[in-house]
Amino acid sequence: MSRIETDSLGQVEVPDQAYWGAQTQRSLINFAIGKERMPLAVLHALALIKKAAARVNNRNGDLPADIARLIEQAADEVLDGLLDDQFPLVVWQTGSGTQSNMNVNEVIAGRANELAGKGRGGKAPVHPNDHVNRSQSSNDCFPTAMHIAAAQAVQHKLLPAIGELSSGLAELAARHQHLVKTGRTHMMDATPITFGQELSAYVAQLDYAQRAIRSALPAVCELAQGGTAVGTGLNAPHGFAEAIAAELAALCGLPFVTAPNKFAALAGHEPLTTLAGGLKTLAVALMKLANDLRLLGSGPRGGIAEVRLPANEPGSSIMPGKVNPTQCEALSMLVCQVLGNDTAIGFAASQGHLQLNVFKPVIIHNLLQSIDLLADGCSNFQQHCIAGIEPDTEQMAAHLERGLMLVTALNPHIGYDKAAEIAKKAYSEGTTLRAAALTLGYLTNEQFDQWVRPEKMLEPGDKG
Amino acid sequence: MSRIETDSLGQVEVPDQAYWGAQTQRSLINFAIGKERMPLAVLHALALIKKAAARVNNRNGDLPADIARLIEQAADEVLDGLLDDQFPLVVWQTGSGTQSNMNVNEVIAGRANELAGKGRGGKAPVHPNDHVNRSQSSNDCFPTAMHIAAAQAVQHKLLPAIGELSSGLAELAARHQHLVKTGRTHMMDATPITFGQELSAYVAQLDYAQRAIRSALPAVCELAQGGTAVGTGLNAPHGFAEAIAAELAALCGLPFVTAPNKFAALAGHEPLTTLAGGLKTLAVALMKLANDLRLLGSGPRGGIAEVRLPANEPGSSIMPGKVNPTQCEALSMLVCQVLGNDTAIGFAASQGHLQLNVFKPVIIHNLLQSIDLLADGCSNFQQHCIAGIEPDTEQMAAHLERGLMLVTALNPHIGYDKAAEIAKKAYSEGTTLRAAALTLGYLTNEQFDQWVRPEKMLEPGDKG
Amino acid sequence: MSRIETDSLGQVEVPDQAYWGAQTQRSLINFAIGKERMPLAVLHALALIKKAAARVNNRNGDLPADIARLIEQAADEVLDGLLDDQFPLVVWQTGSGTQSNMNVNEVIAGRANELAGKGRGGKAPVHPNDHVNRSQSSNDCFPTAMHIAAAQAVQHKLLPAIGELSSGLAELAARHQHLVKTGRTHMMDATPITFGQELSAYVAQLDYAQRAIRSALPAVCELAQGGTAVGTGLNAPHGFAEAIAAELAALCGLPFVTAPNKFAALAGHEPLTTLAGGLKTLAVALMKLANDLRLLGSGPRGGIAEVRLPANEPGSSIMPGKVNPTQCEALSMLVCQVLGNDTAIGFAASQGHLQLNVFKPVIIHNLLQSIDLLADGCSNFQQHCIAGIEPDTEQMAAHLERGLMLVTALNPHIGYDKAAEIAKKAYSEGTTLRAAALTLGYLTNEQFDQWVRPEKMLEPGDKG
Amino acid sequence: MSRIETDSLGQVEVPDQAYWGAQTQRSLINFAIGKERMPLAVLHALALIKKAAARVNNRNGDLPADIARLIEQAADEVLDGLLDDQFPLVVWQTGSGTQSNMNVNEVIAGRANELAGKGRGGKAPVHPNDHVNRSQSSNDCFPTAMHIAAAQAVQHKLLPAIGELSSGLAELAARHQHLVKTGRTHMMDATPITFGQELSAYVAQLDYAQRAIRSALPAVCELAQGGTAVGTGLNAPHGFAEAIAAELAALCGLPFVTAPNKFAALAGHEPLTTLAGGLKTLAVALMKLANDLRLLGSGPRGGIAEVRLPANEPGSSIMPGKVNPTQCEALSMLVCQVLGNDTAIGFAASQGHLQLNVFKPVIIHNLLQSIDLLADGCSNFQQHCIAGIEPDTEQMAAHLERGLMLVTALNPHIGYDKAAEIAKKAYSEGTTLRAAALTLGYLTNEQFDQWVRPEKMLEPGDKG
Repeated sequence: MSRIETDSLGQVEVPDQAYWGAQTQRSLINFAIGKERMPLAVLHALALIKKAAARVNNRNGDLPADIARLIEQAADEVLDGLLDDQFPLVVWQTGSGTQSNMNVNEVIAGRANELAGKGRGGKAPVHPNDHVNRSQSSNDCFPTAMHIAAAQAVQHKLLPAIGELSSGLAELAARHQHLVKTGRTHMMDATPITFGQELSAYVAQLDYAQRAIRSALPAVCELAQGGTAVGTGLNAPHGFAEAIAAELAALCGLPFVTAPNKFAALAGHEPLTTLAGGLKTLAVALMKLANDLRLLGSGPRGGIAEVRLPANEPGSSIMPGKVNPTQCEALSMLVCQVLGNDTAIGFAASQGHLQLNVFKPVIIHNLLQSIDLLADGCSNFQQHCIAGIEPDTEQMAAHLERGLMLVTALNPHIGYDKAAEIAKKAYSEGTTLRAAALTLGYLTNEQFDQWVRPEKMLEPGDKG
Repeated sequence: MSRIETDSLGQVEVPDQAYWGAQTQRSLINFAIGKERMPLAVLHALALIKKAAARVNNRNGDLPADIARLIEQAADEVLDGLLDDQFPLVVWQTGSGTQSNMNVNEVIAGRANELAGKGRGGKAPVHPNDHVNRSQSSNDCFPTAMHIAAAQAVQHKLLPAIGELSSGLAELAARHQHLVKTGRTHMMDATPITFGQELSAYVAQLDYAQRAIRSALPAVCELAQGGTAVGTGLNAPHGFAEAIAAELAALCGLPFVTAPNKFAALAGHEPLTTLAGGLKTLAVALMKLANDLRLLGSGPRGGIAEVRLPANEPGSSIMPGKVNPTQCEALSMLVCQVLGNDTAIGFAASQGHLQLNVFKPVIIHNLLQSIDLLADGCSNFQQHCIAGIEPDTEQMAAHLERGLMLVTALNPHIGYDKAAEIAKKAYSEGTTLRAAALTLGYLTNEQFDQWVRPEKMLEPGDKG
Repeated sequence: MSRIETDSLGQVEVPDQAYWGAQTQRSLINFAIGKERMPLAVLHALALIKKAAARVNNRNGDLPADIARLIEQAADEVLDGLLDDQFPLVVWQTGSGTQSNMNVNEVIAGRANELAGKGRGGKAPVHPNDHVNRSQSSNDCFPTAMHIAAAQAVQHKLLPAIGELSSGLAELAARHQHLVKTGRTHMMDATPITFGQELSAYVAQLDYAQRAIRSALPAVCELAQGGTAVGTGLNAPHGFAEAIAAELAALCGLPFVTAPNKFAALAGHEPLTTLAGGLKTLAVALMKLANDLRLLGSGPRGGIAEVRLPANEPGSSIMPGKVNPTQCEALSMLVCQVLGNDTAIGFAASQGHLQLNVFKPVIIHNLLQSIDLLADGCSNFQQHCIAGIEPDTEQMAAHLERGLMLVTALNPHIGYDKAAEIAKKAYSEGTTLRAAALTLGYLTNEQFDQWVRPEKMLEPGDKG
Repeated sequence: MSRIETDSLGQVEVPDQAYWGAQTQRSLINFAIGKERMPLAVLHALALIKKAAARVNNRNGDLPADIARLIEQAADEVLDGLLDDQFPLVVWQTGSGTQSNMNVNEVIAGRANELAGKGRGGKAPVHPNDHVNRSQSSNDCFPTAMHIAAAQAVQHKLLPAIGELSSGLAELAARHQHLVKTGRTHMMDATPITFGQELSAYVAQLDYAQRAIRSALPAVCELAQGGTAVGTGLNAPHGFAEAIAAELAALCGLPFVTAPNKFAALAGHEPLTTLAGGLKTLAVALMKLANDLRLLGSGPRGGIAEVRLPANEPGSSIMPGKVNPTQCEALSMLVCQVLGNDTAIGFAASQGHLQLNVFKPVIIHNLLQSIDLLADGCSNFQQHCIAGIEPDTEQMAAHLERGLMLVTALNPHIGYDKAAEIAKKAYSEGTTLRAAALTLGYLTNEQFDQWVRPEKMLEPGDKG
């Protein structure tokens, strides 16, 4: 069952159950590429824009109240997720996102017309361009939707997830604040550290990542809307940009403002590139966290084995009883994806021409995927890994006691060169520092007891 | 409705309609990350391995005929796509792909047991580990499935699509073999070229890309299967590796052989990294193709406007009658994705530890996505862009005639320096080369006619 | 001529003219890799640290005044560039930068000993470890030097260069504020814009980049110094971290403070990763600027040719009189390098293990190279390109007049669909909008005059 | 002291000691960007082209014998490295490399004129364009030089270095062919392996990398020379392309041929992109090698400590006696650089426009740097790390004996589920597999002795 819809190129057959019109249908035919759909978050953000625009246009006298009401009603249905199956277009379409903007225009018009009793679809009483898209262009709607979707995902999903992981780590650090163990640099034994100190680094690294992400948000909260086709604002009334930004801020509870330069807001994607950079900082910090935990958890018999990660599932289809650091693996794999996505975003953001960057869908697809993966990754890692971590205190004590780098405590007393001699002797002869030190005659047994005390090597001012 | 399944960690509740068992269910709980599912191509390849393994194991006397038959029957259902909804796991799981291997083991066992009349699921008469996974480990199955899926996608999808685009371009080039136009270097007017020559470059570039991709295939056709847990082949019989490679080659019609070193086949992903490099070469060639066509099609009134791209859809939601190079945009966006995916793959491939690389799912996810996008991209671009391209011969002729670099033909006659003087004079005075040349007195009108002939500047030996 | 120097591994022959000691010499032997030297900016920053440490150590009573004075004197010679040939080590050394830290320790000690009249080199009266490196470890010195070098390069070189380019663009924009021309989206003719508006976008994009870079600086101004070997601060006195940060802030005139968590400051490089992200934002903006200008300058006869870039050099070795957008090319090439460097930095920053990231030299090498290239690139582009740009006002006027997208002004009067009909008719018949509109009978000649006025299509509220 | 040189833009002052002319000097002024010089390998390759061209042109009657002889003589001096200080231009110049081609043309002409007794520099009797550049364009010379330089560096430097490292690893593997140790997957203990088997993986991975690199060479051996300005070959005689390729092949001893499509050879860089992909494969394999060795060498007391890396230098400025895996660090840092360079190359290769890619210098700069780093890295790693590696057989034996995954040998005898029960019991109770197995009553002491034998778990067919 199908019906006929039209656009400026002519007629197109559209399936009966579809609310969309000719342009959406054309895109389906012309872009049979890949399986990656335009993210729903972008489509919902577009619906939000249509709703806000209908209100502002109506207040300005540019849209009759009944048309505005119909648009708002249909937009609300989109926002409630009732029409999610009406957005079948893929990422790999026109680079301005025009087809997805028209998809939303058509679905809202098509549903509004149905609500008005005129049958599904069509252009009357509500016209997708003249009414739903009133005072707008895809060229300002789509980047506005990108910013809204990104800001919402960061604010409502990513930052809380980082917070969850960070709190989990901070708690674990607090619990093991005084548990002394071997520090390691270059993956080799170094001077002592507490497990709490070790864990505190991850909290601090996540904090740097959060700062990077948060400091990218103000520019993301600047919206292109009001620039229309090329940034001049042609066909939008004076004040439209400011009014719709205020409306969107109120609807979303986020500090959206109108972008100071609309030409840049259409033609470039610096704010999202910077945000992607912040995501990369987070990814980089997570990679180290995942790698460190799998390293500390290595074993159980032939590795470092200082921490026990939760055993969430059988690890092997062939090796019975094997437990693997699978949460670390999932987390580090998604880090690779985020770094890859950052490459894609940077490349795409650099490729705008004159008044428009036409790599918008690929940018927002990668950005939202990265945000989702990082948010889910942080949260999942906290719940299924950090929350269940236990230190193996015996192993930690054994490593600490045998460590040769405790010799560092002797530097201020006997100098670097003699201390090195002691460590080298102990290593090559497989003996203890104490034995080597006494044999060399560089200090007495009592001095060793007094100077080489791991628990006194944990902060500035400590000199053994 | 649910039932209880068990694994070595204990009992798990599994939905009744599921064929999978405890380990799949645990993965669903433990890895609530992202939306990206393990690609079906990998799961089908795993089913193919199970089928081949059942045959070889049976021939070797390691599996009773009835069990082997049940496994094969269930595997065939997977291969026919009848059980596609039974593979719900995401990419972001254990890095060995163990959970997806177990998913396949469990679904095949679960279905086989149902076929045997014992109810869905369970471990008898067919056990997911002891029978379906017999002589195998996830550590050799999963990389084997990666190679099979990649080789099939390249062979059956990508290479034909490149061929389609290449033929389309070659045809267009042949049609316009003698159509003379302005060549351009540095985006500035240069010496003449034919439109056919210009187009022939893309065919040659695609050819280089094809060579790169084809030359990566032999290593991809080397399979890890038979290495089992760490590459030694423990618990697989002598000759298993060779036999199953032969079986898989026969089943797929692709030249699969057993990898010469199984330790490397589990621990590294050099063959797929090289293939990704080949995909990048293709991407790079496509980027230029897309960029050139949008440049040549720019206008219609204020650009180069030497070619007309097909008008597949209205281009703007605000600018009536606008037509945009949307196919170029989709193609160049997916190129960005492929370059990003290449970064992700390279990073992931570098991160193996000792006997296993545990970044396998992210590698194959990116690789197959790139292959799909490139294949769809080539094919779609041919159908919706190249096939409809028309040169604007008048515009070409106008640009050619006015071009200043025709002066190059004078080098062999009057030397570079005098020729430069002519060109500079013509440019600064807005006049023709002929006028400038005559004014300067460097040649006669007749000499100009004889020496400056665009149609004689198209191959070696031409000297105007 | 050589002399013998020693370290804890024994004796090494060192060339007589060298101030360095055994460890520098060993590195020269063991790391014969590539040609990329450790950046001088890092070595100077290390010398600054040595000077500041000598002061603080002396104030704390940990270093005799004469030793401190000698260290400071030698460090000042390094800072004055007098000993630049004494730092021969390459980037591809130990990942902690220990060898370069020791290079500085040895050169300062070696020169201090010479100043003390004891001959070049050696360990007395000034010892490279016990005195020059007093209260320090390579593990805190080197990341501190990285931060100092990066902060200085950004503050003193990059931000001024961005400012220079931005001012140049702003001036050019101001000069052509009212020069109306064709806007272009999707590289196709769109609605009008002024040349000033077009240029204003670049200023705004550079502004976003500056914000990204500036917002990364506070974290870069947090210094690792005081963390010593693993972050605990062992062997440094209480208060050392704060005191040396204050000393370095005073010496540099930059707001350096001590990092709140030293474990993270040694083990991670989030602050520099974020800064690299900011550099990428700048790179992305510059790519578009370069691409747009070569596009607008394309021709001179067969391109858009709306701007004339300065002719700085003959463009071709074969085509006489050719002028190319070479400044755009240099700028866009260095953008590629910056994006590549960003990949290298992100990868390296993710690869720390436990208490130390040992990819420090590669990170700072790439970061400083990117900063230098971007700074030189901005400045050079301003001087040799932007400063000499002239619009071709006739060409702009010709394109504008013929442009079909002026039809957009009719939307509010006759609706999108009829406007589209007019544009399509004009395009396919090669006629003017006016002719098409009148033929179709959608408006009168007077209405066309009143509604279609490019100079009235340049801001919101304009409706033709 | 300076002299005046001229080009088509006019006069330029050139330092007296310089052989170069006006265009080189202009580039020095116009491109004060960065410190990265055009690689000497490219400049030497250009000199080689000039020599070959002089011969072919002379044979063709296009160049008098005395001029040809002078050019060849001067080119030989360049090739002998006598004029290396005459090539001061940076990478960040025109994207066609025209300025470096002119630098070579000018230096050869300038030296040839001096040889002819006419004073340094100038254009008579040898003219840089009309004679040295005869039948050539920068647009074909420069990509030809890129290919020559890359092919030479791969053939003469990289492949031998890979071979050196590979042989070293193979020798080490052979020496420890039967040394049984714990295998590890997911960084966790797995079934046994020999140290020789473990090492054999790296040899195989290097082999894959070599195959990738070698398979990229044939396309790199296809030369652009003969395409002149836009690929048509204008101003070069018929047969010139083939003749000069043969001449270059003879001069270099490499299988150079003329590229089948010159348009592609100027406008795209697919062959070098593919080669970069091969380099990435090598980088990826080296990263794992470096990471594995630092992991196996971790300790000495609190890590895996199964291998001892050579102690080439003191590892720490603060921790006496510390030895670090510095060779692994240098190698893994340069891998980051190679991956970053690959991003830069891919991006740059995608950005050609119409008849020319103008990102040539940045491509070849990155490619040659990667080749150099990889070659030096392989060679240095072999000499300073692999050659000195010793296994710690006691530690290996201790880990092996305690390993729980020996239980895998029981699968064929008692099934996966019971074997898992044994391993879990042994782990949680901190006991041996044997004890757990006997307590559970799943097998006898004799069966354990017979079935669980690490030395029988090293190849297919082994079942304990």
